[in-house]
Amino acid sequence: MQLAASEAWTVEDFVAGVLSGDRGVLSRAITLVESQSPLHEEKAQEVLRRLLPHTGKARRIGITGVPGVGKSTFIEVFGCHLAGLGHSVAVLAIDPTSKRSGGSILGDKTRMENLSREPRAFIRPSPAGQSVGGVARRTRETMLLCEAAGFDLVLVESVGVGQSEVALRSMVDYFLLLLLPGAGDELQGIKRGIIEMADDILVTKADGENRQRAEQARLDQQASLACLQPATPAWKTEAALCSSRTGEGVPEVWRRIEQFYRELEPKGVIAQRRQQQAVDWLTDLIGEELRRRFDHHPRVQARFPAVRESLLRGEITAVSAARLLLAEFDGGPENPDYDNKN
Amino acid sequence: MQLAASEAWTVEDFVAGVLSGDRGVLSRAITLVESQSPLHEEKAQEVLRRLLPHTGKARRIGITGVPGVGKSTFIEVFGCHLAGLGHSVAVLAIDPTSKRSGGSILGDKTRMENLSREPRAFIRPSPAGQSVGGVARRTRETMLLCEAAGFDLVLVESVGVGQSEVALRSMVDYFLLLLLPGAGDELQGIKRGIIEMADDILVTKADGENRQRAEQARLDQQASLACLQPATPAWKTEAALCSSRTGEGVPEVWRRIEQFYRELEPKGVIAQRRQQQAVDWLTDLIGEELRRRFDHHPRVQARFPAVRESLLRGEITAVSAARLLLAEFDGGPENPDYDNKN
Repeated sequence: MQLAASEAWTVEDFVAGVLSGDRGVLSRAITLVESQSPLHEEKAQEVLRRLLPHTGKARRIGITGVPGVGKSTFIEVFGCHLAGLGHSVAVLAIDPTSKRSGGSILGDKTRMENLSREPRAFIRPSPAGQSVGGVARRTRETMLLCEAAGFDLVLVESVGVGQSEVALRSMVDYFLLLLLPGAGDELQGIKRGIIEMADDILVTKADGENRQRAEQARLDQQASLACLQPATPAWKTEAALCSSRTGEGVPEVWRRIEQFYRELEPKGVIAQRRQQQAVDWLTDLIGEELRRRFDHHPRVQARFPAVRESLLRGEITAVSAARLLLAEFDGGPENPDYDNKN
Repeated sequence: MQLAASEAWTVEDFVAGVLSGDRGVLSRAITLVESQSPLHEEKAQEVLRRLLPHTGKARRIGITGVPGVGKSTFIEVFGCHLAGLGHSVAVLAIDPTSKRSGGSILGDKTRMENLSREPRAFIRPSPAGQSVGGVARRTRETMLLCEAAGFDLVLVESVGVGQSEVALRSMVDYFLLLLLPGAGDELQGIKRGIIEMADDILVTKADGENRQRAEQARLDQQASLACLQPATPAWKTEAALCSSRTGEGVPEVWRRIEQFYRELEPKGVIAQRRQQQAVDWLTDLIGEELRRRFDHHPRVQARFPAVRESLLRGEITAVSAARLLLAEFDGGPENPDYDNKN
């Protein structure tokens, strides 16, 4: 809808509008970036190319945790705190399920009522109907647009289950894991590997009767962190408490993040991480595209079920199966049948 | 050396020799499978294809742990115990570093003196000079050869650091992790994710003055396992003690493995795992080959350094960088320059 109206917009219109910080143009530019039409993609890449010199200046913060941990509530309180300190905050999300589950994160802006009324904040839900890889790519590019529009903080949220954490970790500088207080079972439902990726752990809902339990959970976490390699070189991951209801611990989160940049930026750790992320992202994009071509190849598709069946019945080895399919892939274009169908 | 002598051997010679259980032919067949020459690969695949109907009957057991945990000593004692029970045991390894580090595992057979004298056992070191993927592929195929030769147990060892554990987990039914006893720091040096892959944990060197410390380590492990999802559905991972010196705990390891198969085979869990492993392996092989072709493409190689530089300087996005390189890849064969060089 938005896009249709901006179909006539030139690359220059988008670039000038985003750089001026115009929220309406920013939203349209994000919709352009999210579009899966090849025509829009061409234009989006040109817009991004032009904006790139104006990106990279924001602090990129990832926030994750399982559903029910209180992510939205925390981000609202945290975002308002940051706006109060004079920061401009963009809030994005990686949630490949957002449309299927009826908008589990950010989809329902009413859950961040105060923050969405805050003029210094900009909230953008996850693009819908795409794979984790697709969503992550769009979120990365949306982050660049927000940076070009002048936001100095980008908070990116993920759902805390499955692959989206890995994608999130690969696009932010600092990664915060929210955990629920619980009697020893605070790890339930959270993949162990996520804790290894965290730059800090925050035990939420530390208020009222929960306070004591939350403190115990924090101590348990702190103890188990001693066994782990920190996610960022020269940085010691810590576990802290917070309550979005009372506000306890919220300013401290920001102080930790400031400390993170103050200590690690001069050492070049952040710049190095971003460079590594860019190269990793390039590698992933190429791998995905090569795989996509293979999987969509008509002759591969035609042969695949029989080859898979032979493999599962133990008639051929995986190496032989791979050779058979690769031969179809290679033979493809020379086959007149294939040319006719395409 | 071995291979040169068997250059004249036909596929039929290999097949008949392996099926008869001839150790010499088995060794030569493994050397054939390990060869990286395309000519040998052709023959190896044909040998494997012919032997496939005779594979799959062995129990496939993976054993991992950091250097110093006592893997070789345990495997020797465990292998001799199994041979004593009437089993025939093949011991293989995934160790991409074996030649570089001068044979850290299995390379030095003298470290398994008793087992290597055992007529029911067959020890084969890791193939040398290959990547993790390459070593893993050869080990998988060597496992099939050993099964066809009639071994009813295949133990595969890995070094316990890095990627070889993931490769090992993806080719065995049951995965045993060896851990050193230590006061609370028994996880040091071990990636947390490895514990999530284990079907059982074995604290080694539980003898003499170490006994008490080992028991404490076992209790700690047992407690932390409560927080984790088990690696195999319907199976509860447990932590046990063992001493390769006194022999304590060694028969119990085998009883656990027997229980594993007794409980899970009727439920189809093992068969399902093997089918999934075959499909995953196929996917990996295809992905590796596509990537190899891309990385070795002369035009991609020529363009890559400049594109990477632009990406790192923030002049282009990763998406643009990927497009530039993919365009080189696509343009390649039509380019007369390319054809001349190739």
